[in-house]
Amino acid sequence: MKKYAIIVAGGTGKRMGESLPKQFLKLGGTPILIHTLQAFYTADPEIELILTLPQEEIQFWDELNIWHQNYVEHKVVAGGETRFHSVKNALELVDEGLVAVHDGVRPFVSASIINQSFEHAEDKKAVVTAVLMKDSVRQIDNEGKSKNIDRSSLRMIQTPQTFEAKLLKSAYSTDFKPSFTDDASVVEAYGHKITLIDGDYQNIKITTPEDLIIAEALLEAR
Amino acid sequence: MKKYAIIVAGGTGKRMGESLPKQFLKLGGTPILIHTLQAFYTADPEIELILTLPQEEIQFWDELNIWHQNYVEHKVVAGGETRFHSVKNALELVDEGLVAVHDGVRPFVSASIINQSFEHAEDKKAVVTAVLMKDSVRQIDNEGKSKNIDRSSLRMIQTPQTFEAKLLKSAYSTDFKPSFTDDASVVEAYGHKITLIDGDYQNIKITTPEDLIIAEALLEAR
Repeated sequence: MKKYAIIVAGGTGKRMGESLPKQFLKLGGTPILIHTLQAFYTADPEIELILTLPQEEIQFWDELNIWHQNYVEHKVVAGGETRFHSVKNALELVDEGLVAVHDGVRPFVSASIINQSFEHAEDKKAVVTAVLMKDSVRQIDNEGKSKNIDRSSLRMIQTPQTFEAKLLKSAYSTDFKPSFTDDASVVEAYGHKITLIDGDYQNIKITTPEDLIIAEALLEAR
Repeated sequence: MKKYAIIVAGGTGKRMGESLPKQFLKLGGTPILIHTLQAFYTADPEIELILTLPQEEIQFWDELNIWHQNYVEHKVVAGGETRFHSVKNALELVDEGLVAVHDGVRPFVSASIINQSFEHAEDKKAVVTAVLMKDSVRQIDNEGKSKNIDRSSLRMIQTPQTFEAKLLKSAYSTDFKPSFTDDASVVEAYGHKITLIDGDYQNIKITTPEDLIIAEALLEAR
């Protein structure tokens, strides 16, 4: 079955206190986004890669990518206003088969998790990687009061989130809602059950300066 | 007002795949637990430190602590069957004032957070450090189905958790329940409102081998 991966990189870098969008920051000398593309290529070179980037970053990316000589073949699509709009744009390039959606700033996704995601998605159609919560969790109500909630019932959601392409395209043929924080929430709103599979604590999302320090340490330990 | 800190170190090391309990593992050449005690001493040398350790680890700790010449004055109490029982034992040594409870394997707690915890506890009586969730979260029901929950309403709970000593002692004069995952949950069950204050993403809990790699990187970056 044909496999696609949509790599979402919408960062403008403001949150990192850097001038470069975070997906371009160097990790072991190579931009984060190149690590991420390579992770999918390594898992299966047959996966068709579609990268979404803010329109104004596409030219820089093209030059950066050639300069680093780490070329992994991929298509580039201009992102939209939110992650939802970016994925929707990328889905225009997806035909039948299976499609994984992955955060560009999660470079440590393993080949094993990528391949398991596609395998389970053939059967379950909507498969999301998740890990257990390590910390206690409290929930805040409308009055600002917090209460303890049973953390054993909670899962932290990662990417890849992998779907039957037809299902994901149908789910995305709707208008944006603020509750759409990831692809699973879009598919759930469309009415399809989400299957959770084991993620990996090393598959971190690099969003703050301390995450970059952590990422360098994880890269070195490999 | 008199200040106490109970440092809870109950680890047996099994989860780390190491023979040494995790609180004794080296971070920058010094046992994690010594970093943690020093963090409180640095914040305020007047804080009375009470360390809970499994009975069978106390002799080793005494020798280790002398050998490292990083002596921060503290009392040692034998821990109990669970974290709840360990804190309950330590509270026997607490009189009037304020008491912070802190995980022994969170060595990166800042002086600022320790001091703010005590300041807010004078007024609010039950103050817990917390950070926002970075990832999407799903909750699993009894049938194994998961649903997306609004992560903006959730907080990951850290330590220190700081209380009026009288309140905490009263709250702990109860029997153990499995829902007691931290001190806030014990005080909440006793009927007192919990106030959340800002924690810090660097204040990580070292519980897995990859956490130790991350901790070494955070230490080096300081």
